[in-house]
Amino acid sequence: MEQLRSQTPAIPVNEEAFEFEETARRIIQWIAAYWTTPSKYPVFPQCQPGDIKKKLPTLPPQEGEPYECILNDFESIILPGITHWNHPGFMAYFGTTGSLPGVLGETLAAALNVNGMLWRTSPAATELEEVVLEWIRALLQLPKEFRGVLTDTASVSTLVALTAARESLGLHIREKGMAGRDNLGALRLYCSDQAHSSVEKAAIVLGIGQENVCKIPTDDEYRMVISALEQAVHNDRQRGYLPFAVVATAGTTATTSVDPLAAIAAICAREKLWLHVDAAYGGAAALLPEKRSLFQGLENADSVVFNPHKWMFTQSDCSTLFVRQPRILKQAFSLIPEYLKTDDGDVTNFMDWGIQLGRRFRALKLWFILRRYGVEGIRGMIREHCRIAQLLATWIDNTDDFERVAPTPFSVVCFRYHPVHVDDEQRLKQLNENLMQKLNESGDFFISSTILRGKYTLRAAVGNARTTEETVRNFWERTQEIARIHLR
Amino acid sequence: MEQLRSQTPAIPVNEEAFEFEETARRIIQWIAAYWTTPSKYPVFPQCQPGDIKKKLPTLPPQEGEPYECILNDFESIILPGITHWNHPGFMAYFGTTGSLPGVLGETLAAALNVNGMLWRTSPAATELEEVVLEWIRALLQLPKEFRGVLTDTASVSTLVALTAARESLGLHIREKGMAGRDNLGALRLYCSDQAHSSVEKAAIVLGIGQENVCKIPTDDEYRMVISALEQAVHNDRQRGYLPFAVVATAGTTATTSVDPLAAIAAICAREKLWLHVDAAYGGAAALLPEKRSLFQGLENADSVVFNPHKWMFTQSDCSTLFVRQPRILKQAFSLIPEYLKTDDGDVTNFMDWGIQLGRRFRALKLWFILRRYGVEGIRGMIREHCRIAQLLATWIDNTDDFERVAPTPFSVVCFRYHPVHVDDEQRLKQLNENLMQKLNESGDFFISSTILRGKYTLRAAVGNARTTEETVRNFWERTQEIARIHLR
Repeated sequence: MEQLRSQTPAIPVNEEAFEFEETARRIIQWIAAYWTTPSKYPVFPQCQPGDIKKKLPTLPPQEGEPYECILNDFESIILPGITHWNHPGFMAYFGTTGSLPGVLGETLAAALNVNGMLWRTSPAATELEEVVLEWIRALLQLPKEFRGVLTDTASVSTLVALTAARESLGLHIREKGMAGRDNLGALRLYCSDQAHSSVEKAAIVLGIGQENVCKIPTDDEYRMVISALEQAVHNDRQRGYLPFAVVATAGTTATTSVDPLAAIAAICAREKLWLHVDAAYGGAAALLPEKRSLFQGLENADSVVFNPHKWMFTQSDCSTLFVRQPRILKQAFSLIPEYLKTDDGDVTNFMDWGIQLGRRFRALKLWFILRRYGVEGIRGMIREHCRIAQLLATWIDNTDDFERVAPTPFSVVCFRYHPVHVDDEQRLKQLNENLMQKLNESGDFFISSTILRGKYTLRAAVGNARTTEETVRNFWERTQEIARIHLR
Repeated sequence: MEQLRSQTPAIPVNEEAFEFEETARRIIQWIAAYWTTPSKYPVFPQCQPGDIKKKLPTLPPQEGEPYECILNDFESIILPGITHWNHPGFMAYFGTTGSLPGVLGETLAAALNVNGMLWRTSPAATELEEVVLEWIRALLQLPKEFRGVLTDTASVSTLVALTAARESLGLHIREKGMAGRDNLGALRLYCSDQAHSSVEKAAIVLGIGQENVCKIPTDDEYRMVISALEQAVHNDRQRGYLPFAVVATAGTTATTSVDPLAAIAAICAREKLWLHVDAAYGGAAALLPEKRSLFQGLENADSVVFNPHKWMFTQSDCSTLFVRQPRILKQAFSLIPEYLKTDDGDVTNFMDWGIQLGRRFRALKLWFILRRYGVEGIRGMIREHCRIAQLLATWIDNTDDFERVAPTPFSVVCFRYHPVHVDDEQRLKQLNENLMQKLNESGDFFISSTILRGKYTLRAAVGNARTTEETVRNFWERTQEIARIHLR
């Protein structure tokens, strides 16, 4: 019988382990060198759309190829198309970097390749996740009743939190849904006009709708205006809408502004609204005693998202979600098919805490990082980032032809070139676009832009493990030079 | 000024790279040894809930610790709590394993740590993802118009697909949501009573509601009954409901049955329903010409999910989602805040294709695996799994006191101990629970159970890279021995 003939494995196991060790050694050497001098590569690659694609075959190989070929192609095809997030000059978006302890944690996690959906599918994965999240809960100074869970991204953490918020209404939306229910008003969600796009995306997915995301205006420092929030909730109730949650941001993406958490929490308590705090970026700064006052009120949230993969030197993906009442999270999500029922008793089965059933062992890298650096090591790096961002802010403030466009509470500097004689916004946009393009083309720096109250704004985000005072000094000199020479 | 004092980094960069290389070498050696003989560990650990937790401190260290300590704790605390998914005797749930090329891919991805949200945030990450997904599209024999995207899990792929399905209704649910709309009937979703729990979870999140997931009965071989689907859609329309999507399964979790895809696709075409095919597990078997007939009709789906991290030797997490009309996916999800606007022209920005903004470089491991093994290497392993599962099925069929409870189209064998003189279902459940417990306690095998038409059923899932004919033979001998000695 044809189908009963035994097959030999693709590569015998001993041979496979041997060539793995040999190849891995080469890769490790490369990583160590890369880590020491990532700036030998241009931060933004000199490539055009399609450049990489056209060097790769349109079909996979029929027979296996030696690692030699794969690594060669990695170096000659893939690397020239990499935007180097590890480059000290990477200051676009949020400067997020992993770390070498994180590489080790991920390597081991990839080798074990356990799925932490149930306690029994790897007790150590579940319990280490509980322990590490308890560590982070303590660092964030969240009250003891908060429990944490790891997800992949803040987008998912916020979606999960808002699903729980919706469930907390007690309207049986889990069972009956929201369509075709005569007595159900439009659910309303509030966040500032600076909130992350993931809030709106969550509203889309949840079937709440973008129009029901009420974007509350912000003050001069891009923080939610409390009276406007109160008014919006009041108006919505009058119209028969169903206000259910507020998303406050501690560290907005554009300017890293922090909403007045305590005041928002007070409104949420009074109005019985779920308070979700998006501290995906800002949460790292909450570890610094000197920044702590900005986070007052965080302890009154119902849920908080903080991403170690943003500014805590953790490999992507790694988002922490903390909830005050895990019971509600489980009420929203728990769904145990017959093939996953266990009698393990009172254990945590993280598959009950969110959308994804499959869960990789993300706690391992966090454990490696927190232990290898220690809390003070991590604080030191975050503090240094804040310091050098502040330096850059001061230099900008002291230069006539440049201006800061927003305060710099943490490590992102929003600024623009603004020659004293130019006032036309279109012209300013053009000048700054040119400035950014020149900076990014250099291969030494990579920044991004945003628009703030109609002003085209450049963002220099410090957050990269390799970014130093020298980097920022060079960045500032280059920026001024470009303005002086090219933007006349 | 206190805050302007420079901070030295936690560990100087050269020192950090040096100790990384040293530690990584040790880790690689361990991985190579582990990979060669994973069976030196018990597949299911001998630990009780809380055992790991209580060995770990309740707070993170203030100062950094040497790798030596971390690795020692890894070996003495974490490893004894690991369920070894790499163990050849791991036959619970789906036997899913990664591979050594996958470890290498993940290690490099962790080192580069790029975020593939936009083309420009790493052109090579986006373009390699496009290329590798085009390879897999071809292997699955999906028509050329299908485009693929990587997500973390099938749960998310299915949620994303159903969000697009909802969007395709043209009812402005993205903008207006579903609550408080008088003219909107309940949205209805169809799947078989064997469909994965992720379908129901998606319905919860989307605000469709569990009660609007219409579970169509299955035939003797656990495949959706077509006439029942037709009837359900018809009845729902009569009641003013809004049927919008069918999820067919190619490889159900309990028995790996395959719904009649072609017939379902015909109904979907006629009724204008979105057809999503969950081939998360089964998709791997679609690579085998001899299994291909089971997948007839797959080409008529609107969206298909296939998880390389299940049965294609890819490290978790790695799910592929293919859609016939990427335009609708983008229509559902695209949402570009100012700080992410680019002028890169006609490039793929995968953040527009789903929920998550942050996207790690998952294509790299897939590329390593597909190249190192080649298509024929992968087919060989999958084919061998089917062969040895068939062997086990035959042995069970030929043994008086055992019976198969479902057909074995792929590599999962559903069976139970059923002594000729016992007919009481409660007693049979007890016997089989005991059998499973004894097997799992041995440390040599790990299986799981389900309930099929009221019958307590054991599942032996072959799918692990290390599982061989010898493993399955030993498993069968041990199973019979336990029955003979302990279950009298």
